Amino acid sequence: MKAIQYTAFGTRPKVVDVERPSPGPGEVLLRVTASGLCHSDEFVMAMPEEGYPYPMPMTLGHEPAGIVAELGSGASGVAVGDAVIVYGCWGCGVCAMCADGTENLCLTGMLSPGLGVDGAMAEFMVVDSVRHLVPIGDLDPVRAASLTDAALTPYQAIKSVLPRLVGGTTTVVIGAGGLGHVAIQLLRQLTPTRVVALDLGQEKLDFAKENGAHEALTSEPAAAATIKEMTRGRGADVVLDFVGADATGELAVSCGGVASAVVVVGAGLGGAKIGLTSAPYNMSVSTSLWGRRKELLELVEMAKRDQISIRTTTYPITDGEKAYEDMHAGRIVGRAVVVP
Amino acid sequence: MKAIQYTAFGTRPKVVDVERPSPGPGEVLLRVTASGLCHSDEFVMAMPEEGYPYPMPMTLGHEPAGIVAELGSGASGVAVGDAVIVYGCWGCGVCAMCADGTENLCLTGMLSPGLGVDGAMAEFMVVDSVRHLVPIGDLDPVRAASLTDAALTPYQAIKSVLPRLVGGTTTVVIGAGGLGHVAIQLLRQLTPTRVVALDLGQEKLDFAKENGAHEALTSEPAAAATIKEMTRGRGADVVLDFVGADATGELAVSCGGVASAVVVVGAGLGGAKIGLTSAPYNMSVSTSLWGRRKELLELVEMAKRDQISIRTTTYPITDGEKAYEDMHAGRIVGRAVVVP
Amino acid sequence: MKAIQYTAFGTRPKVVDVERPSPGPGEVLLRVTASGLCHSDEFVMAMPEEGYPYPMPMTLGHEPAGIVAELGSGASGVAVGDAVIVYGCWGCGVCAMCADGTENLCLTGMLSPGLGVDGAMAEFMVVDSVRHLVPIGDLDPVRAASLTDAALTPYQAIKSVLPRLVGGTTTVVIGAGGLGHVAIQLLRQLTPTRVVALDLGQEKLDFAKENGAHEALTSEPAAAATIKEMTRGRGADVVLDFVGADATGELAVSCGGVASAVVVVGAGLGGAKIGLTSAPYNMSVSTSLWGRRKELLELVEMAKRDQISIRTTTYPITDGEKAYEDMHAGRIVGRAVVVP
Amino acid sequence: MKAIQYTAFGTRPKVVDVERPSPGPGEVLLRVTASGLCHSDEFVMAMPEEGYPYPMPMTLGHEPAGIVAELGSGASGVAVGDAVIVYGCWGCGVCAMCADGTENLCLTGMLSPGLGVDGAMAEFMVVDSVRHLVPIGDLDPVRAASLTDAALTPYQAIKSVLPRLVGGTTTVVIGAGGLGHVAIQLLRQLTPTRVVALDLGQEKLDFAKENGAHEALTSEPAAAATIKEMTRGRGADVVLDFVGADATGELAVSCGGVASAVVVVGAGLGGAKIGLTSAPYNMSVSTSLWGRRKELLELVEMAKRDQISIRTTTYPITDGEKAYEDMHAGRIVGRAVVVP
Repeated sequence: MKAIQYTAFGTRPKVVDVERPSPGPGEVLLRVTASGLCHSDEFVMAMPEEGYPYPMPMTLGHEPAGIVAELGSGASGVAVGDAVIVYGCWGCGVCAMCADGTENLCLTGMLSPGLGVDGAMAEFMVVDSVRHLVPIGDLDPVRAASLTDAALTPYQAIKSVLPRLVGGTTTVVIGAGGLGHVAIQLLRQLTPTRVVALDLGQEKLDFAKENGAHEALTSEPAAAATIKEMTRGRGADVVLDFVGADATGELAVSCGGVASAVVVVGAGLGGAKIGLTSAPYNMSVSTSLWGRRKELLELVEMAKRDQISIRTTTYPITDGEKAYEDMHAGRIVGRAVVVP
Repeated sequence: MKAIQYTAFGTRPKVVDVERPSPGPGEVLLRVTASGLCHSDEFVMAMPEEGYPYPMPMTLGHEPAGIVAELGSGASGVAVGDAVIVYGCWGCGVCAMCADGTENLCLTGMLSPGLGVDGAMAEFMVVDSVRHLVPIGDLDPVRAASLTDAALTPYQAIKSVLPRLVGGTTTVVIGAGGLGHVAIQLLRQLTPTRVVALDLGQEKLDFAKENGAHEALTSEPAAAATIKEMTRGRGADVVLDFVGADATGELAVSCGGVASAVVVVGAGLGGAKIGLTSAPYNMSVSTSLWGRRKELLELVEMAKRDQISIRTTTYPITDGEKAYEDMHAGRIVGRAVVVP
Repeated sequence: MKAIQYTAFGTRPKVVDVERPSPGPGEVLLRVTASGLCHSDEFVMAMPEEGYPYPMPMTLGHEPAGIVAELGSGASGVAVGDAVIVYGCWGCGVCAMCADGTENLCLTGMLSPGLGVDGAMAEFMVVDSVRHLVPIGDLDPVRAASLTDAALTPYQAIKSVLPRLVGGTTTVVIGAGGLGHVAIQLLRQLTPTRVVALDLGQEKLDFAKENGAHEALTSEPAAAATIKEMTRGRGADVVLDFVGADATGELAVSCGGVASAVVVVGAGLGGAKIGLTSAPYNMSVSTSLWGRRKELLELVEMAKRDQISIRTTTYPITDGEKAYEDMHAGRIVGRAVVVP
Repeated sequence: MKAIQYTAFGTRPKVVDVERPSPGPGEVLLRVTASGLCHSDEFVMAMPEEGYPYPMPMTLGHEPAGIVAELGSGASGVAVGDAVIVYGCWGCGVCAMCADGTENLCLTGMLSPGLGVDGAMAEFMVVDSVRHLVPIGDLDPVRAASLTDAALTPYQAIKSVLPRLVGGTTTVVIGAGGLGHVAIQLLRQLTPTRVVALDLGQEKLDFAKENGAHEALTSEPAAAATIKEMTRGRGADVVLDFVGADATGELAVSCGGVASAVVVVGAGLGGAKIGLTSAPYNMSVSTSLWGRRKELLELVEMAKRDQISIRTTTYPITDGEKAYEDMHAGRIVGRAVVVP
């Protein structure tokens, strides 16, 4: 079967022919119907050879949608032909975090398809456990695939600050790309907050507004003063940073007000710093990694109610190399999805 | 000046001429610009003579909007001419509940305008403290007056269950009247929940849908089965009961699912009962009285952003008696407001 | 092997000889080291024949401790010889509640050992999944077995109200028996609250005080007035009802104050009722069933730190019939544990 | 009357004779019975002349206890002779934060006695409003005075993370001084967490243990590894930093585990920085300034129940200059209190 793999350090993804896998005990084989691309794929391919933790080659793709094709021995609870998406945080299921329903923070270290084991950029893939399958019914798999990360990641970040987002509040979203544009939609559906998006370039700012941002500003230090003004001096109540660089961390802190919350979602190798006298009093900064399985179930219900719509550009698997080039070059608005 | 007073047991409100009051130390005189009617006024007039806790006669009206007309000695923080609404839960300011910003649960017993001291159904009224005034800027006072109760009361009830109202949830609103129709609007603004309204008569059901309910059903025991079906057997996540009778309490419990929450807001002299084996597991029932001052500030911001719109019917103060008759007869859709 | 079974309607538990079970795929065989008795066993044996949901005969016992004796095919993550206790809420693992780490509220209906499948009152038992085993290391199995229910059940109830139990608060515990005495210990470890226990008979009141209650009062309607006095008129902040009858529900509501919480834990076929005007404002009543797996992990850590100590009386399995008679007759102080 | 004042830039506090003040409208005159010293006093005296925001000279002291000596016109709710302590966060009472009961974060900027207006280091002081007085009944004023800051400040910090501090958790306290030693006591009373104190010098480590710390380690980077080991690799669940320097901020982050919380309480001009990949996943850092009035009421109840005991060293007001020298030189264990 066809698959898109990372095959050697310093190379780009390649479309290759590999053997179709078989499900072991408790596992499930899916025929893949859609597989979203993510900047995390680039993050993996940029990791140094020394200490690289994953197998090589490895099939990419951690935003899978598929149809159940075969059940391994002992696997039950789904049937061949069921349409599903795959929750990608494959924790141990036993540790205190997994016991709490938070496999994304598994204390023994989670594995993920495309990030440790072969992923969804292929005609077929194996899922380790029925509990990581989420039925989607009639949802379009292309629209549903990216719920697993591009929606789940901002959703968890927003849920961590949801009780703050009451009437009269203001939320800043830094970075209106693949995750950020979904964050804007989610904020509008989940809260009455005013959404101010920060990004670079008119196209991104327009895209933010199309997705529901009340205001869109160029992402630069001066934006903080504009936000202070919009909020009559108070500053934003919540700032979501989908970049995660030092510059955006500093910007995030400068946009926030007394008792506000900054959530760093982007993996940009930087962060945000606060102290009692160097930031508004009682501010908090937290990070947020991916999301919980329960939250993905909630997102599927929202998608069924048309409360969320991820902008996608599709590619046949044979054009997978081009898909990665387009993402790498910043030519994708929204999310690229490979359709095998 | 003209005022609408409750003057004797067993009588209906009367338009009378009374002396214009003067503000004492720390107090503020308002020229009233709007004053909402509320079923609580009827509740007071139905109280028995024995043990009646309020002065007689008493000017009604606990949903005031006005213009600051005069400051008592020592009062500061507002200026003559400022447009305000009045937070009606006048607590002691000192007890543990007031210290927590929850004057509506003041441990020494709050007083309210129209519910203990002369209220807003008059050309002028006295407010006990500057802290009970909430500036409204350019908001229309007729639209703003009822924020103080008809919006604040459902808002507190909803905030008490807000973290539950995530993606995929269902909320039942029993009673789509003066408070219930605002509850529906607030649920749509504050959450992604599906709203199912229960009431009697097509006019009320249509009104619920106009205000944003996804579904509107006749309020009867059979509604519970319909809601179970809509939710694939789970039951509602939240039920808000704006009636508060035994029948609605029982209906509320039968509509809810495992780990759901019922909030009783209506003062209908009944309630809801649950036990471990007689209701879905881990259900909760709570009551909710009026709201917090902070919450009223949040609602004013939402009104400024056009996120809430209370349906009003206005009456000049000289028609005040008719206004009360219309409310009593159930002829008001939304909220009746007297404009002196 | 020996087992204690419920063998026919209208009979008492019997010690019988049965075949030693074998673990299927993914399952684990335990050599049982301790098995706690619980009033729920009596609850099951009192159920009517019509509609009885469990197999007959069935080995009782849902508070197991044991040593891993054999792994079924595909089971991994524990080793033969490991000392464990068993989390008894065996949910589907897939539904929204299980995804949230709340198997005790599994939407498809949980099975439990001794409450649907053969339980721990035997020399060996089969556990359905490795995820339901909690390692206990060097803990005494007799002390650890009852953590699984007698500690877990009050722990979840307390955790649901924990943020309320700050400095200066008062908590009432109705029923200081098998679960209640652990609740008292937990309240003292987890909070600074003052604990007032209500029960019948001097022995129970003394037992409550030995376990840390600051005050112990006879459980009768007059207790509410005493508690109001102790709290300068406010009433208790939290009331935990380990009986669950209508009388205790009514007592619970009458002991609580404004904005207080009643949690009904006992399965006594009654409950508590509240309405806006018939109970202190903004009171809540909720029920609480068993507990979450994560919470059991927390309790094991507390037991390792000697922060919890369940009073136990042990019986050899051959005296199992007498153990049930003693519990039935109310002759057990604390918890009865069978040691095979 | 005698007072201890800050009289000129670059000087130390001086005992001076000043006129006894009189209460204005709504104000209250106290005869001071105890006045705690705080490092914030030093913080003020280290501020540069340019931009210095307070009057000069100014009587120091923001931890007051006293007896009501005289009521200004219109002040009511207390009586001459009442024993009180003073909540020091004098907010506007009107803004959204004050409306929420959070005067310590007043949006218009709070004033405090000794930090903006004349404070408690005097025989008499004026309090701006009855709502800032907290009755203490029979409590020893020397023990009670420091509740207002030395206990309130750590209490708010702990309350912000309280739901995390369940069974099996570990909390690190950096700095076991005036506030830190109370934090240790509070953690032991409020939670079942294991407390690990970090400080410099055997005397401080012994003091931490006397106050309830389970472990006390030298505050240095290597402590993080010890804490990881104590927690089987997980790291602490909560870290409270009472220093607030960059070094302690970095130490705090290195001690914490996945999903842990760092609270920076110390005003040491530094802070803590986190990013998604540079700190354990889903960690949070927040700051915490002083506390809420409601929380001070809770602490008074805890003190009445002997659940908190601040170590104090007393000085007559005539030795006030020496008291400040002793604090400055680090010779105080616990809290210095001036008794006029």
